[in-house]
Amino acid sequence: MSKGQNKKETNPWVTQHTKLVYSNPWIQVQEHQVLNPAGNPGIYGVVSFKNVAVGIVPIDSQGFTYLVGQYRYPLNTYSWEIIEGGCPIGEPLLLGAQRELAEETGLSAAHFHYLLDLHTSNSVTDEHATVFIATGLEQGTALPEETEQLTLQHCHIDQAIEWAKNGTITDAISLAALLKIDSLKKNAGWPPNPNFLSELPRPQIWEERYPL
Amino acid sequence: MSKGQNKKETNPWVTQHTKLVYSNPWIQVQEHQVLNPAGNPGIYGVVSFKNVAVGIVPIDSQGFTYLVGQYRYPLNTYSWEIIEGGCPIGEPLLLGAQRELAEETGLSAAHFHYLLDLHTSNSVTDEHATVFIATGLEQGTALPEETEQLTLQHCHIDQAIEWAKNGTITDAISLAALLKIDSLKKNAGWPPNPNFLSELPRPQIWEERYPL
Repeated sequence: MSKGQNKKETNPWVTQHTKLVYSNPWIQVQEHQVLNPAGNPGIYGVVSFKNVAVGIVPIDSQGFTYLVGQYRYPLNTYSWEIIEGGCPIGEPLLLGAQRELAEETGLSAAHFHYLLDLHTSNSVTDEHATVFIATGLEQGTALPEETEQLTLQHCHIDQAIEWAKNGTITDAISLAALLKIDSLKKNAGWPPNPNFLSELPRPQIWEERYPL
Repeated sequence: MSKGQNKKETNPWVTQHTKLVYSNPWIQVQEHQVLNPAGNPGIYGVVSFKNVAVGIVPIDSQGFTYLVGQYRYPLNTYSWEIIEGGCPIGEPLLLGAQRELAEETGLSAAHFHYLLDLHTSNSVTDEHATVFIATGLEQGTALPEETEQLTLQHCHIDQAIEWAKNGTITDAISLAALLKIDSLKKNAGWPPNPNFLSELPRPQIWEERYPL
């Protein structure tokens, strides 16, 4: 797989016209008149997000973390997840991660270690998520938003990973984060060395588009 | 974590009115007038998908798989992914998985092993994805849709997992699938025993909502 930009990796779509069809404080939906990769006319409905999703896995010195349970309105289902929230585009992601961790758990963290970037639903949306592991934790008071009715679950990271593996957790950001931590854990021993976590490289393209 | 339905897991949102604001062959967008969990009025924009996403990781007897590279229009970025496609709601997911595998790679598979269910972006969408491992592979001719300009990459599953870990792959469905395979692989030896894979339990709620 070539890492560089080669001819086949250039955009094969042509955008002819763009119309805004819906907007609220969180998303906007545009319908694009396009020529598809075969050169034929068509439409593409694109959902753009006004926030970057940040995910945070706080891990204390004993290996314990918090999961958050909440009812997910679009899915009509209760969902157990890592700490997640929105960071307005342009705000450094670390500020958003600190705020969401504090709001949902009351925790502050001495260290945020980059874990991964992911794209949740790239056939229709531009939603980008960046996930951190937070260590060096100190407890304060949680202040969830009123749209959030959250239940905190204090559990060992191994238990959270087991719920990711056995299908209890289905949220994509949470699944990817917990399974990647499982992988790091197996490769690097546990508890993780913060210096090791700090050395996880972040692809340059995401650092440029969504700076920490 | 309670697995049963208890009071705190019931829906704390009240829907007062629903208005369709956009629809195309793939998605519809509705704006709901709601009372949020604190009982205050607000709006919720929900993006509903007309297909269930299916993901397929074909693995041959030597441990080789295929990744697909394509330009993702909403994201304005080239993306390397597992085989993915859409299965119209109501169609058994295995039929959709067989069709997408054949279209994108020309492969047919003797066995489809359930790997995971996930929700790609549950703050705004109801998109559901189900991923399979396909084994017992036989090569035919690929027939991609004209909206797809795909590049196939034939590589060992260990290489694909490495790309999931090092940030080359950012697509959520692909990341979760490859990291879960890494986890199975470490627990169960390699190549995987098809009988073992067949025993991966699927949570009943997803089997009821999205039957295989």
